[in-house]
Amino acid sequence: MIIDCHGHYTTAPSGHDAFRKAQVAHFKDATQPAPVYPLISDDELRDSVEANQLRLLRERGADMTIFSPRASTMAHHVGDGQVSAVWTRHCNDLIARVVGLYPEQFIGVCQLPQSPGVPITHSIAELERCVQELGFVGCNLNPDPSGGHWTGRPLTDKAWYPFYERMVELDVPAMVHVSGSCNDNFHATGAHYLNADTTAFMQFLQGDLFTDFPDLRFIIPHGGGAVPYHWGRFRGLADMLGKPALAEHVMKNVYFDTCVYHQPGIDLLFEVIDIDNILFGSEMVGAVRGIDPQTGFFFDDTRRYVEALPLSDADRRKVFEGNARRVYPRLDARLKARGL
Amino acid sequence: MIIDCHGHYTTAPSGHDAFRKAQVAHFKDATQPAPVYPLISDDELRDSVEANQLRLLRERGADMTIFSPRASTMAHHVGDGQVSAVWTRHCNDLIARVVGLYPEQFIGVCQLPQSPGVPITHSIAELERCVQELGFVGCNLNPDPSGGHWTGRPLTDKAWYPFYERMVELDVPAMVHVSGSCNDNFHATGAHYLNADTTAFMQFLQGDLFTDFPDLRFIIPHGGGAVPYHWGRFRGLADMLGKPALAEHVMKNVYFDTCVYHQPGIDLLFEVIDIDNILFGSEMVGAVRGIDPQTGFFFDDTRRYVEALPLSDADRRKVFEGNARRVYPRLDARLKARGL
Repeated sequence: MIIDCHGHYTTAPSGHDAFRKAQVAHFKDATQPAPVYPLISDDELRDSVEANQLRLLRERGADMTIFSPRASTMAHHVGDGQVSAVWTRHCNDLIARVVGLYPEQFIGVCQLPQSPGVPITHSIAELERCVQELGFVGCNLNPDPSGGHWTGRPLTDKAWYPFYERMVELDVPAMVHVSGSCNDNFHATGAHYLNADTTAFMQFLQGDLFTDFPDLRFIIPHGGGAVPYHWGRFRGLADMLGKPALAEHVMKNVYFDTCVYHQPGIDLLFEVIDIDNILFGSEMVGAVRGIDPQTGFFFDDTRRYVEALPLSDADRRKVFEGNARRVYPRLDARLKARGL
Repeated sequence: MIIDCHGHYTTAPSGHDAFRKAQVAHFKDATQPAPVYPLISDDELRDSVEANQLRLLRERGADMTIFSPRASTMAHHVGDGQVSAVWTRHCNDLIARVVGLYPEQFIGVCQLPQSPGVPITHSIAELERCVQELGFVGCNLNPDPSGGHWTGRPLTDKAWYPFYERMVELDVPAMVHVSGSCNDNFHATGAHYLNADTTAFMQFLQGDLFTDFPDLRFIIPHGGGAVPYHWGRFRGLADMLGKPALAEHVMKNVYFDTCVYHQPGIDLLFEVIDIDNILFGSEMVGAVRGIDPQTGFFFDDTRRYVEALPLSDADRRKVFEGNARRVYPRLDARLKARGL
């Protein structure tokens, strides 16, 4: 089977987004009415994914998507911790409903109620709720809740440790994924996302996080940002910093997805990164929605690029299914329960 | 001939660095003595490059380096505009002296007296001095003088325009190059440099700077950060943002160097980027100084990677010489004056 490890609910019903708009307006001006979350029917949910994610999943021949709230609208930098908590709960609940409607096509990953300056310990309860009550199999962890100002601590800082402890206990991985940018220097999907991926990897390289948490697992999306393209640089930096080789030091715990939107990039990814560290992903419907005039196919139809590689059947199965089941054990258990 | 477009004076004599240390101490505590810039002999300068840049230039078979002050110690975020101005002048003067000692092997590119919140117009006089009096052929422009806090405006903002006007008048390009990072999230050479490269490219993509300045030229170093690896993403984003194709919109004005420290990265760079937009560079002696155990050669011996490509003689000449002479016309004029 083919599991897409990276899908966001970018097509949520308008009532959901209207709530957010009203929530932010109320936060900025308390004389504005406090919004009530709208009733959203199952049909609305069905419509929102049938015409989009589900249609593309079928057209492209994938079987299921690890599905999380829209990344750009997590917007942890907007409002405060309480605003983020309320919004996050609604976003995750909506994912749970979609998964409930299509349990064979979607499985949930949660956003977290992060907020600049708010300890990550405040996100543990929502992680627990999503995993234990809603059946989610992982989370999206924002390394920069400030939205492009990078005012927090690196991911290797001990401030993050209580959250990592719970991740390990629950046996769920995190995708390292920033949200929108409120810094004019950074276009969200064209700079901030890729920078965050590169930054997270280098933080892991500089630190010794996986000595403390040998079972902690991160997916760095968008093909690992700049990392595979500069793999020699990172190997050389590990050497200069007196760290073990990357295979030992980082790559027992870090995985890259295939959200790289052209064949040469995918070729490079598979040339330099071990097959066991690559998870199929497309991030559709996401950052880049057009058709590549050079190929006539959607930029984010990443299955085509992977299929074009001279992989053995065993390696192809790893990328499309096996690695995801290994990195997300709760997904694996769910599939096994379905006899898969 | 082989021109390395990207070399920094990372091995400056200790007196130069001691001055900086004392300058910063004096800025932080005015009761500390105001430093006097030391006398540095020509022999000290010779020693500092003979054993390093010049030795490697000869060993690796390159002919000359476009040489600028050490990037990580520009440190525009330290001190204030006046501190930056004094330090910058000393750094550039030292480059001029090295070029004076080895006019066939080095040609100068200047750092600028940038400082957070100080208008870029304050850097115009130093650019003029370096180009018109010291014979420099370009400058290093820091898109983030705050050192990893990104508090300034994007490179497409009109605040930068007076500087660009002077660049065009003087017919000099800028390498977009950040300095050290004072943000713990960003390792300088492992994250901040690459992020800045990606960020600058995306700013150019989002804006229309080259409509206003059709003759403005930028070199984005380190192989363009994450850009070539994600070339499909950027092509798709240009499309989504309603911009012309990248070849028209950005790549008539933007060039990438070859500071990518492994063969697969160089292979990708040359596969997706037009040969006319690639300048040979190594950034030696720089960020990654070790030997790659996989090859037995220095990571930053980028000539080997380029030589391994199946390039025509004409294309190889472009990358090693022709493109640099086109992008740096003042270098070309100097070489022509030498009969080259």
